[in-house]
Amino acid sequence: MQNLFESLNKLTILDQEVKIKLENLVKVEQFEKDDFVLKEGSAIRKLYFVENGLLRSFFHKDGKEVVKWFCYEGQFATSMYSFISQKPSYENIQAIEKSTLFSITFQDLQNLYETYPAFERIGRLLTEQYYVMLEERIILLQFQTAKERYENFLRDEKCLINRIPLGYLASYLGITQETLSRIRAKK
Amino acid sequence: MQNLFESLNKLTILDQEVKIKLENLVKVEQFEKDDFVLKEGSAIRKLYFVENGLLRSFFHKDGKEVVKWFCYEGQFATSMYSFISQKPSYENIQAIEKSTLFSITFQDLQNLYETYPAFERIGRLLTEQYYVMLEERIILLQFQTAKERYENFLRDEKCLINRIPLGYLASYLGITQETLSRIRAKK
Repeated sequence: MQNLFESLNKLTILDQEVKIKLENLVKVEQFEKDDFVLKEGSAIRKLYFVENGLLRSFFHKDGKEVVKWFCYEGQFATSMYSFISQKPSYENIQAIEKSTLFSITFQDLQNLYETYPAFERIGRLLTEQYYVMLEERIILLQFQTAKERYENFLRDEKCLINRIPLGYLASYLGITQETLSRIRAKK
Repeated sequence: MQNLFESLNKLTILDQEVKIKLENLVKVEQFEKDDFVLKEGSAIRKLYFVENGLLRSFFHKDGKEVVKWFCYEGQFATSMYSFISQKPSYENIQAIEKSTLFSITFQDLQNLYETYPAFERIGRLLTEQYYVMLEERIILLQFQTAKERYENFLRDEKCLINRIPLGYLASYLGITQETLSRIRAKK
């Protein structure tokens, strides 16, 4: 769980007691390519950490899949809306690659919040990060041109470019696959 | 500051020391109708609590104003994206009515987080609430019909219906004023 602790240490210093407690709560889960971590209509009960592999989130709109995010090694993954509210999710989470995830349940996390102030901090900072990411996605879809969206993706997520089918990337950027191909051809 | 403490007490119990510390940090600010609390392009440095009055947030898209949220007595207001990231805001915050706000600066809030675990909890829970509201707005705009949007607004925010110009409400619901008038006439 070295990677998980490194990611948490970027948020706050965890002492040995908290680390041991966490190690006892975290489960390892394996997902094959195309396996679903979450299906829409269910509330998600777990927060995941991607030890290795790659996930996507998508929802259905007008009969089409719309990709909402990608999540890879070193990142936390859940349907944040469903996880916080414990309401049914409108999004699906699916493995794009064979993936190893660490998971903690909603209830165990609430208990950590109650017991360890360091976890309150982690919870606050993670939620803040996810808030900013969600709003940056709104900004991307509201204000950026297709070219800007692609260039920003290249800048921020270059490591993903050869791991994601072009159809998924176009959907994530909110543009057609033809537009994406045209932008890529020009570069 | 009775209302502020009541709102905070819904999130966690604050002891007397924390309340006194908070009282010393909070400033009272008065805004006349149409005054701006925040103009787009600036980073927002404060978190506000609406003691009384009514605010709206809006941004410009294709030369038009788009209303993003309303905020009234007992609620916390800021441009959450700009406040967390301390990046320039793309939204404006404006008083719709003469308003009395309590404010705390970003830096003072960070100091409270550092010093009092109870504030970490408040910060986490408030950010979670704002995350859920932001995503519910995305769901509203992506999946609900004009009629559903209006009916949900009536259900959740009935107290606002006579305090908001129809043009602002239509913009908030992502529909034209004609469509809004038609839906209201049918009811």
